[in-house]
Amino acid sequence: MLRDMAGTIRFHFDFISPYGYFASLRIEALAQRHGRTVEWCPMLLGVSVLKVMGLKPLLDTPLKGDYIRHDVRRHARRDGVPLGRDLDAPVMNPLPTARALCWAKRHHPASQAALVHAIYAACWGEGRDLSTPQDLASLSVPGLAGEELAAAAAGEEAAQLLRDAVQASLAAGIFGSPTFEVDGELFWGVDRLGDLDDWLTSGGW
Amino acid sequence: MLRDMAGTIRFHFDFISPYGYFASLRIEALAQRHGRTVEWCPMLLGVSVLKVMGLKPLLDTPLKGDYIRHDVRRHARRDGVPLGRDLDAPVMNPLPTARALCWAKRHHPASQAALVHAIYAACWGEGRDLSTPQDLASLSVPGLAGEELAAAAAGEEAAQLLRDAVQASLAAGIFGSPTFEVDGELFWGVDRLGDLDDWLTSGGW
Repeated sequence: MLRDMAGTIRFHFDFISPYGYFASLRIEALAQRHGRTVEWCPMLLGVSVLKVMGLKPLLDTPLKGDYIRHDVRRHARRDGVPLGRDLDAPVMNPLPTARALCWAKRHHPASQAALVHAIYAACWGEGRDLSTPQDLASLSVPGLAGEELAAAAAGEEAAQLLRDAVQASLAAGIFGSPTFEVDGELFWGVDRLGDLDDWLTSGGW
Repeated sequence: MLRDMAGTIRFHFDFISPYGYFASLRIEALAQRHGRTVEWCPMLLGVSVLKVMGLKPLLDTPLKGDYIRHDVRRHARRDGVPLGRDLDAPVMNPLPTARALCWAKRHHPASQAALVHAIYAACWGEGRDLSTPQDLASLSVPGLAGEELAAAAAGEEAAQLLRDAVQASLAAGIFGSPTFEVDGELFWGVDRLGDLDDWLTSGGW
């Protein structure tokens, strides 16, 4: 099979996902080593996990919730990554941030990576809540005015773009955050960055 | 904190778990590098996942089931591990195998590792079904007679030992297979063998 060296790594994630946050900080360096670019693809765990799969929110699951709280803090310590969010606080509404990203991908594609990092730094690094469109107005993203972003996140175009993105991600079999998609192959979980790296190095197995 | 260099790595697993199978083939070499021994600790996903956590069987979960089928085969190919089991076949009843291991740990502790490998090789490597005590009679394990194992797996002592083991694993916060427990720290998933290795090397973080 001819490998498309200039191909994209599709990074599927939900802004409410701490493991998506950790992986977002490592995926670009990995992609660059393999001559790949990253496409940032928002998905919604509230649709895949709760509605399609019929499971519970991770942190509300007995046993697993406690493990995940511990593991997220341990992961942040190991990576030396700021983690300002209270894991027992109510989960942020991910719709405004995900809609804003969809809108930015359409109208300001060169700013999408910076927007992802700004959102993740705000909500997971600093522990801010970005549950409403207006919360986005204070984000500092080169090439994107905060007020414009807030207005877009409240608009119908962004909502429709996100609905389409979520449907596309479900059709591609995406259910968890983060999931890395490369040449039609899926790798689910931040722990699979090593597998993704090996896959790109070897051409697969 | 004084580290117990001679301490044990508790390897928690269910025989129905393919990721437990993959990890079982790597844990002893890892433990040996750190001067640790392995204790094989059966748990039951049917209790932790289905009853306590209220989730569905992995392979019956929409989206995730398809991913896991693909990922298990991919994982086996990468590790060069035989995978003779039909992932669409009914899940094996894990009680006789788990009970047999509990009994062997009590009465033939030196044979426990060989028994684990014999069971996993039979059910995941060769695709055999060990759902009944009598299925264990054909296992070849140094120091353990197959017929004795089959009789023990059908007895009340083994059943009680497993009930106690499962309660202890739940009390320790174990919910998934495999989970590695070292010095009170839990690492869930075969993908965390690297983390476990780093933890033992560095003394934790």
